[in-house]
Amino acid sequence: MPESAVPVNLADKLSQFSELWSQKKVAALNDYEVKLAKLKGEFVWHSHEDTDEMFLVISGRLTIQLRDGDVVLGPGELFVVPRGVEHCPVADEETAILLLEPAGTLNTGDAGGPRTRAAEMLS
Amino acid sequence: MPESAVPVNLADKLSQFSELWSQKKVAALNDYEVKLAKLKGEFVWHSHEDTDEMFLVISGRLTIQLRDGDVVLGPGELFVVPRGVEHCPVADEETAILLLEPAGTLNTGDAGGPRTRAAEMLS
Repeated sequence: MPESAVPVNLADKLSQFSELWSQKKVAALNDYEVKLAKLKGEFVWHSHEDTDEMFLVISGRLTIQLRDGDVVLGPGELFVVPRGVEHCPVADEETAILLLEPAGTLNTGDAGGPRTRAAEMLS
Repeated sequence: MPESAVPVNLADKLSQFSELWSQKKVAALNDYEVKLAKLKGEFVWHSHEDTDEMFLVISGRLTIQLRDGDVVLGPGELFVVPRGVEHCPVADEETAILLLEPAGTLNTGDAGGPRTRAAEMLS
């Protein structure tokens, strides 16, 4: 069996980091990346012109603010923000999410700014 | 807020069907589909020449048989079967999974046969 043929345990991966608002790559699917992140507080308003973005909440509670209303996600709930739609994630408690989008998608999208982070590989 | 701006609750969606080995579409991300399925027993050996395929176990226990060994997934564990790699899912107990792959990917891949089903939209 190839060395890579081991499952990705999301809880194990989440236990390996504590940094907030920093996406960690845990798997690749074609030219997409599966990433984990821990969030608390409010992020920045941004959009991704070229891609949809999927959020799946693992633990905690995530509010995805949209310009015309909020989407609130608990554990086991997902939402796809369509390309070009401005959004701003906010979490009152520490929240763990799985993100799915094309490789290289930046967390701040078209907004840029000081909170921009490239996703990092989690060993 | 657009009518579609509601979260997808995976447990709710899973409660809406009982059919085994029948993929239900619950979200779209660019030209990819997020699908749910319930599995029990053994499927058929097959591969997907053109795409990787992601399995995430929600409940139960899934064994993905590969020609050179098995990958066993419990809840909160995921695995990406690389394109072209023959695999055969098997579940001793009823198991719920989330699948991610390009729209139109068939469950039996290149094997075809009587167990082929197109994914259905879940309302």
